[in-house]
Amino acid sequence: MTDIQRTTLAFGDTVMFVGKDRKTFLRTLVPGGRLQTHFGFVEYDALVGVPYGSRLETHLAQDLWIFRPSLDDLVRHLRRETQIIFPKDLGYILLRLNVQPGARVIEAGTGSGGLTTVLASMVGAEGHVYSYERRARMQNIARQNIQRLGLEDRVTFIERDIVEGFDQVDAHAVFLDVPDPWEYLDQAHRALRGSGFLGCIVPTLNQVLVLNKALHSRRWFLVETEELLLRQYKTVPQRMRPNEQMVGHTGFLVFTRSVIDSGADGPDVDEDDEPVLGVDFLNPG
Amino acid sequence: MTDIQRTTLAFGDTVMFVGKDRKTFLRTLVPGGRLQTHFGFVEYDALVGVPYGSRLETHLAQDLWIFRPSLDDLVRHLRRETQIIFPKDLGYILLRLNVQPGARVIEAGTGSGGLTTVLASMVGAEGHVYSYERRARMQNIARQNIQRLGLEDRVTFIERDIVEGFDQVDAHAVFLDVPDPWEYLDQAHRALRGSGFLGCIVPTLNQVLVLNKALHSRRWFLVETEELLLRQYKTVPQRMRPNEQMVGHTGFLVFTRSVIDSGADGPDVDEDDEPVLGVDFLNPG
Amino acid sequence: MTDIQRTTLAFGDTVMFVGKDRKTFLRTLVPGGRLQTHFGFVEYDALVGVPYGSRLETHLAQDLWIFRPSLDDLVRHLRRETQIIFPKDLGYILLRLNVQPGARVIEAGTGSGGLTTVLASMVGAEGHVYSYERRARMQNIARQNIQRLGLEDRVTFIERDIVEGFDQVDAHAVFLDVPDPWEYLDQAHRALRGSGFLGCIVPTLNQVLVLNKALHSRRWFLVETEELLLRQYKTVPQRMRPNEQMVGHTGFLVFTRSVIDSGADGPDVDEDDEPVLGVDFLNPG
Amino acid sequence: MTDIQRTTLAFGDTVMFVGKDRKTFLRTLVPGGRLQTHFGFVEYDALVGVPYGSRLETHLAQDLWIFRPSLDDLVRHLRRETQIIFPKDLGYILLRLNVQPGARVIEAGTGSGGLTTVLASMVGAEGHVYSYERRARMQNIARQNIQRLGLEDRVTFIERDIVEGFDQVDAHAVFLDVPDPWEYLDQAHRALRGSGFLGCIVPTLNQVLVLNKALHSRRWFLVETEELLLRQYKTVPQRMRPNEQMVGHTGFLVFTRSVIDSGADGPDVDEDDEPVLGVDFLNPG
Repeated sequence: MTDIQRTTLAFGDTVMFVGKDRKTFLRTLVPGGRLQTHFGFVEYDALVGVPYGSRLETHLAQDLWIFRPSLDDLVRHLRRETQIIFPKDLGYILLRLNVQPGARVIEAGTGSGGLTTVLASMVGAEGHVYSYERRARMQNIARQNIQRLGLEDRVTFIERDIVEGFDQVDAHAVFLDVPDPWEYLDQAHRALRGSGFLGCIVPTLNQVLVLNKALHSRRWFLVETEELLLRQYKTVPQRMRPNEQMVGHTGFLVFTRSVIDSGADGPDVDEDDEPVLGVDFLNPG
Repeated sequence: MTDIQRTTLAFGDTVMFVGKDRKTFLRTLVPGGRLQTHFGFVEYDALVGVPYGSRLETHLAQDLWIFRPSLDDLVRHLRRETQIIFPKDLGYILLRLNVQPGARVIEAGTGSGGLTTVLASMVGAEGHVYSYERRARMQNIARQNIQRLGLEDRVTFIERDIVEGFDQVDAHAVFLDVPDPWEYLDQAHRALRGSGFLGCIVPTLNQVLVLNKALHSRRWFLVETEELLLRQYKTVPQRMRPNEQMVGHTGFLVFTRSVIDSGADGPDVDEDDEPVLGVDFLNPG
Repeated sequence: MTDIQRTTLAFGDTVMFVGKDRKTFLRTLVPGGRLQTHFGFVEYDALVGVPYGSRLETHLAQDLWIFRPSLDDLVRHLRRETQIIFPKDLGYILLRLNVQPGARVIEAGTGSGGLTTVLASMVGAEGHVYSYERRARMQNIARQNIQRLGLEDRVTFIERDIVEGFDQVDAHAVFLDVPDPWEYLDQAHRALRGSGFLGCIVPTLNQVLVLNKALHSRRWFLVETEELLLRQYKTVPQRMRPNEQMVGHTGFLVFTRSVIDSGADGPDVDEDDEPVLGVDFLNPG
Repeated sequence: MTDIQRTTLAFGDTVMFVGKDRKTFLRTLVPGGRLQTHFGFVEYDALVGVPYGSRLETHLAQDLWIFRPSLDDLVRHLRRETQIIFPKDLGYILLRLNVQPGARVIEAGTGSGGLTTVLASMVGAEGHVYSYERRARMQNIARQNIQRLGLEDRVTFIERDIVEGFDQVDAHAVFLDVPDPWEYLDQAHRALRGSGFLGCIVPTLNQVLVLNKALHSRRWFLVETEELLLRQYKTVPQRMRPNEQMVGHTGFLVFTRSVIDSGADGPDVDEDDEPVLGVDFLNPG
């Protein structure tokens, strides 16, 4: 992991260059390298020791600013072959899974490693991330991404179908980003400590219905289903307005907590009135 | 800070008890104490060594579940006299300010200490939070909240009007939750490292316009104005639906990054066409 | 129906009085009557011939403004025992069902008559509304509401379970506000002309799934499922902002059109990925 | 205006053809004409007397369905050079301006005639629309659109800068879709009857602030600023979900009502905190 206390550039740093038009380039500084852009190039050797936040000029005298990429910037630039979880959802997932320095967190599947990256950063050197994925190809991409960021000591990759269960017990949190999370609830429950956090993301109404039904059992409590909508604004001061286009949907977020013994009846489902429909129709196969 | 690795209850733990009806009680376990509820009581002495996630019975044989509170649960239960930042915004702020273990973060004002709590947890033992507030009364409430959570080593409280500036330099991030953040941009800039993160939250359109205008100067780049809407669902599986009432507005989030030298012209404002209006009307006093 | 061309008050008019604090009173002017408010009264006899939009003073010299109620104002004041359709949805339903002067529209159930009122106004003297409801009590309330507004010539109320079908054929549009609209699709189809409009409103995800599955048959085409969110702003000019609380959900709106003969395979279900509008849909040149 | 009672096709009808893939073609039937598509053609002469809602086959034996276009379908297909008002906003505007058969409505500017079309349809044969626009070119496009729909008897086009005022008095409603509606409030007030309806649409925060400030004068009451967000769903029954992309912003809608004499102080500006509806607003008993 890049030393977050340093304020100047060094070889090995992953650096975010931004042109006047906000065009962005993410590069790792290597001796003798250069950034080539449509408005000129800069030589990396000249950048060592320069403070982050500085303005450079390319050999064509065009402005270029140097930023230290945020975790979010890094995730957006990951090499990837799958949809990644959006920043609006990532931050909320961290908070709702109570991810903190020292936490042990399980995720499945690994995907391209976007959430893996964020989790590994947030759990710190004392925490750990266990990332399950049955597609070797995907996991290799994620592993390379994690290595590029120097986070490999904090992540264990396991190539496996999670129907076989997780190797860990007493995990603080489990996050399932798979098409059928309801199939792995027992496995997740065994891997979690009592009072542990389970989170899932699913894109369709059909899935969210099946998942909620499965979670209203006696092993889980405090189920919540939520969605976040991010509205971004054009910031030209004379004509500020929301963007005409926005992301209308990423996924439904479902959070719950594991309980050890749910008693004779289990917790109440918040029954506001009588059932009107079975759910067999939800997955008509 | 409570040891996050322990899986069983101990004296000194802050514990979240939840009844069958989801009624929630947050209590710190002290020898000889008891939780008294409308459906019976439990004695704390009997709880030591019990696993989190267990089900108890009150003396009236009513079910009660024991959870370790999440950071979010703790923030919701803080003693407070001001509006706190909502969880939907908290998670996103963490991500957008790149708060990680080891970070040094400044906030103003302290308010009731909700964001302070989250920041202090996330920066870990190696990081630090500097919290400014000019109202002594508010800061005392926040200090007590932070002490109750055992996070006092990670937070320095400063009672001061920030017009006088911040004592720190090279901070990773500054967050301003004040009515007139545009008045403190120079102070924030001096406190931040190059490429550092500034975040602000303001509730009104008037403020967001003034703030955006002020940020389109030559000391800041990559200004973004955003809003998050959280949609929560009723999770009764037979009749799932979004909640009829939702929080329609908390605040506009404005994020930007500091640059050291912005060159002759500064970065482009994304000029999509010609200005139509001055902004004098924005703050007609 | 009140003469919409008159600009002054007359006995028999339903009038909306609004105090300085926006407190609103809807009353029908009768000879010798008076409006009694917490800030004084006004005598109706003195109001005849006064222009709408005028300011009155109560006997306590408090201001009171006189408005002609809009259709929307009237619907909000209906005597009712059921949830009414919200204005945000009403306007859109009108447009999506192509309700215009001269149209023949069927609705079920009648409910408290809110949509009935709007439909009856919009179809004009040449159109007609057929309103089905199996609960006699509900339909009586709606009938009284419609009579109070002088729209009774435009509405035929039928007390019946619509499982038995509708009496009309060649209707322009059918709107179903019932818990199980999928049970009445054949009945609706028989009542509609070819290319007619069907609209439904349902509150739950479960219902919207069952309904969409039922509509993907060979009798309906151009199925669309939509939702409207209305965001209202506080309009104090110095601190404009969205309301902190908003209505987060009323219902899912499902619209489709009837087809007479759907061919061997029926129309395609839109296969999952891309928008279905052809380019020349928007600007056929 | 096409006879809305007829159920079969005739020459002169504007017809909406839709292919199996939902590709849509809007055409007016002329003797000897044909619709040419990428999956074959159909001859118009063979269509006369065929019921709307029928399925045709092209000469390549591909399915094609015939719909009568709704008002909304027509507006989407208008020849245009300006942004048109979206259907989600159109329906709400109709309701909030109380547009009904018999109403006299003024709009400025004409734009491409989308709102003009909807207004002209809704006011019926007894109502009228007065449409102001200072750009001759725009108004000619709108006039052609209106003529193509046979609505020309219901619309008077006036080519003028509305700073000079409107020719009408006692109008039921005025709608301003111009960049600076606050400049024409006096003109609108003179054109409206007392208690008349004013609506405006503006895209930016800057404009909505200036407009609200201008409306908090003594000539207008019941100012409301609102926005509608339309969420559309993919309707594939096995994987229903909101569309990934949505329209995030069209414009802010501002509605208010004219008052004749606002008294010594004028109505209160709603002082910042509480909803302004009295309890008897909803169910006055």
